[in-house]
Amino acid sequence: MSEWTPRVVVLSGGVGGARLVHGLAQLLPPERLTVVVNTGDDFEHLGLRICPDLDTVMYTLAGLSNEPRGWGLERESHEALAMCERLGHEPWFALSDQDLGTHLRRTQLLRDGWTLTHVTAELCRRLDVAHRLLPMSDAPCPTTLVTADGRELGLQDWLVRHRAAPALAAVRSPADPGPTRAVLDAIAEADLVVLTPSNPWVSIEPILARPGLRARLATRAVIGVSPLIGGRAVKGPLEAMVRSLLGVDPSASVIASRYADILDGWVVAPGDGPSDTGQSGTGQSGADQSDASPSAAGRVRPRVFERDILLPTLTERTRFARELLELAQEVAP
Amino acid sequence: MSEWTPRVVVLSGGVGGARLVHGLAQLLPPERLTVVVNTGDDFEHLGLRICPDLDTVMYTLAGLSNEPRGWGLERESHEALAMCERLGHEPWFALSDQDLGTHLRRTQLLRDGWTLTHVTAELCRRLDVAHRLLPMSDAPCPTTLVTADGRELGLQDWLVRHRAAPALAAVRSPADPGPTRAVLDAIAEADLVVLTPSNPWVSIEPILARPGLRARLATRAVIGVSPLIGGRAVKGPLEAMVRSLLGVDPSASVIASRYADILDGWVVAPGDGPSDTGQSGTGQSGADQSDASPSAAGRVRPRVFERDILLPTLTERTRFARELLELAQEVAP
Repeated sequence: MSEWTPRVVVLSGGVGGARLVHGLAQLLPPERLTVVVNTGDDFEHLGLRICPDLDTVMYTLAGLSNEPRGWGLERESHEALAMCERLGHEPWFALSDQDLGTHLRRTQLLRDGWTLTHVTAELCRRLDVAHRLLPMSDAPCPTTLVTADGRELGLQDWLVRHRAAPALAAVRSPADPGPTRAVLDAIAEADLVVLTPSNPWVSIEPILARPGLRARLATRAVIGVSPLIGGRAVKGPLEAMVRSLLGVDPSASVIASRYADILDGWVVAPGDGPSDTGQSGTGQSGADQSDASPSAAGRVRPRVFERDILLPTLTERTRFARELLELAQEVAP
Repeated sequence: MSEWTPRVVVLSGGVGGARLVHGLAQLLPPERLTVVVNTGDDFEHLGLRICPDLDTVMYTLAGLSNEPRGWGLERESHEALAMCERLGHEPWFALSDQDLGTHLRRTQLLRDGWTLTHVTAELCRRLDVAHRLLPMSDAPCPTTLVTADGRELGLQDWLVRHRAAPALAAVRSPADPGPTRAVLDAIAEADLVVLTPSNPWVSIEPILARPGLRARLATRAVIGVSPLIGGRAVKGPLEAMVRSLLGVDPSASVIASRYADILDGWVVAPGDGPSDTGQSGTGQSGADQSDASPSAAGRVRPRVFERDILLPTLTERTRFARELLELAQEVAP
């Protein structure tokens, strides 16, 4: 089983996605792993194009990321922004000096007419990241968060500037910009598609919302990993989003239900298996719940597996990636 | 005499200008000193608007400049550009992290529709620079250097990227963008106009070339300071420029001849007085050459004074500024 080296496409958000991709990159050669990264968080700041999820995955694969925090760079100084703020810039979004260098270079190449796909390939090449990172689209697809009091905020605006405090009524992703040709080709050739343990609304669903993409996934083997453990998010505002957007308690199965039409396998933390009701589950650690479990949509998939899905270290990431590929082999057609 | 506090307008380039302005700022209250700064060196780099002379004067007055080098900031790290270069950016122009913060903020405000005059006032206010800095124009006026082999280069391109190596055939400043209203008003109200010890072609004459400005100076008391000492430039490519553009040996009097129509007084280094022939002069240190000296244009001005014009420290700058104001009182109508 460990000899299976499928062509894998990963749909990834930021920190949680980067950790799983980091593990998979230890096992799969570059030509077998393509990461399609959410760009719904991308924004302009100080005239620079910032792509938080692309950078998090890129820095992680390049061995430059700030661990265990998971985002940003290990080597951090803030001289530039400190001066900028001294000169009156509102200090709501922190950018380290090195990170600024990335945004300056990306913005320069985009201004020169490069596509984001081409720019991303160039930045990865320069950082010796061999596996392929693809932005989900070359056109901007900003995710909009609609607050309970009717404001429309960008993700970083809501998350960073407003500290995820305003209750949300809806999350919207623009319907228009399509996935790139490279994304569609990668999915067409994939033996397996992986959904990383990322926030559905702001990481995975913005990718799935690219026209034509979700329908194509229905014909592929798809395995996903829960971003919730015992109903708690490892990082970020997911718990509060489940409560305010769905009006239910957060749980792994609630997340799975959002992908019911495409999921073949769903990996959750020990105890978060089918008996999971939003409280702690009863499954044994490592036990596979091989029975078909009815999803919220009533379909007889996905198969649910319990594994240790907390991935703080490279050792854990590689261990889990190996387990994931083994499970995927079970659900792949 | 030391009680005289004239309304002074200084026409300034970068390092040499900043040093003289620094001294004058110790003696004159903010409402009595306005610095009109060359913007012919301004350029776009990495999408940022960079104003080398404005920044050099501003940083010097703010006490932030890198001394004795004279430009840039005392506190220098280069994390951002190092990353940018790692990602493929051609490393021809060094920008420190703090300096980058200034350019980011300036560019942001310009993009928001502020004029360069307004932006400069805001940056100065934030850095507690009380004296007024005015860009010579709010519109771009890029100085063009025409090389002997027919290329047209921007100043930073020639000076930094090409290390001032290509011989020059001509220097051009665009005729069009006018001086700002603020510049014209300051000159109209000035008791004294000072030309700093700066390069004529790339610092002072781009200011003088603003439409209507030179004619207005002919009606003011104008005193200038030589940028050459014993035929040598304190800094920069001036000696080579005199040779290649004028075909003569560099000397203080050659520089003075370029301002013959406006100069009332001209301050040179000891020995660089009227007998100066491009070789070492014979004047005594501190001796005033009170005889009218025929300029290259044949006019019977300016009066020439010999003083110590090397201004490495704030003590020297303040000492010289005091001497300059005393001399100016002699030549002012």
